[in-house]
Amino acid sequence: MTLFHKATKIVLVVEKLLRDKVIAIVEAEGAKGYTVVEGSGKGAHGVHGGDRPGVAQGFTIVRIEVIVGDRAAAERIAETVATRYLKEYSGIVYMDDVDVLRRDKF
Amino acid sequence: MTLFHKATKIVLVVEKLLRDKVIAIVEAEGAKGYTVVEGSGKGAHGVHGGDRPGVAQGFTIVRIEVIVGDRAAAERIAETVATRYLKEYSGIVYMDDVDVLRRDKF
Amino acid sequence: MTLFHKATKIVLVVEKLLRDKVIAIVEAEGAKGYTVVEGSGKGAHGVHGGDRPGVAQGFTIVRIEVIVGDRAAAERIAETVATRYLKEYSGIVYMDDVDVLRRDKF
Repeated sequence: MTLFHKATKIVLVVEKLLRDKVIAIVEAEGAKGYTVVEGSGKGAHGVHGGDRPGVAQGFTIVRIEVIVGDRAAAERIAETVATRYLKEYSGIVYMDDVDVLRRDKF
Repeated sequence: MTLFHKATKIVLVVEKLLRDKVIAIVEAEGAKGYTVVEGSGKGAHGVHGGDRPGVAQGFTIVRIEVIVGDRAAAERIAETVATRYLKEYSGIVYMDDVDVLRRDKF
Repeated sequence: MTLFHKATKIVLVVEKLLRDKVIAIVEAEGAKGYTVVEGSGKGAHGVHGGDRPGVAQGFTIVRIEVIVGDRAAAERIAETVATRYLKEYSGIVYMDDVDVLRRDKF
């Protein structure tokens, strides 16, 4: 396992229109890279009601995956995205521990 | 870690033609949301043979990702999808524990 | 949990032009299947400089996901991809333990 080090993967599934705003939050926390794939999905609003009732049923989403070495940075990204956007928009944020190949070993 | 709670992520990679059937199984177990991305892949049939011999070599797939709070529900989704479809079609089902942001905290 | 067995998921996020080369490495290690989705991303070169300076800013990537029963095979895939390609190209390789549905149980 010396080739690998522990890191935190954070996955941010958000409506496509939020893509650039979420990436700005990711970069502000110093993440060196991210991967974005487009998809579709269904989800619940953080707060129900409001004037966008149809959004929860089948919308275009982006799944943004970020690997960071610092778990605290991952938590700040998650919390900032959620606080700013997941009250009004559908989405989900989750984290997981992963083993990342050490760049200084190849 | 008070902002997060443990949950189970289930990933269902299946042929695209099964998309709606698999989502129906997911929703029948009470999952509140899911994310779907399209892709391509290669995989083995659960049972070899039959009249669809070419399917295992490069087919259009969907990757359906679901987060559920209840591990037993995740296992039932996995088992139902596998029993109904993965004998005949290519695909894979796996689960992992993740930390999900608590909606009642933001 | 008797329906599931432990396996290693390896995720290879690489520039799209490397897709077939990376899949060849995956198959050479005996992996029975893989899933590919296209996306975009941003990342750092393993070694900075060279004659492809613009690549790190917004490029087309593929996210290749492979499940293998043998952790050592996963590590060899990761190391081979990194050694051959991640010095020159952007990309990231990470691994995680997952629970896979046992094919002999359905």
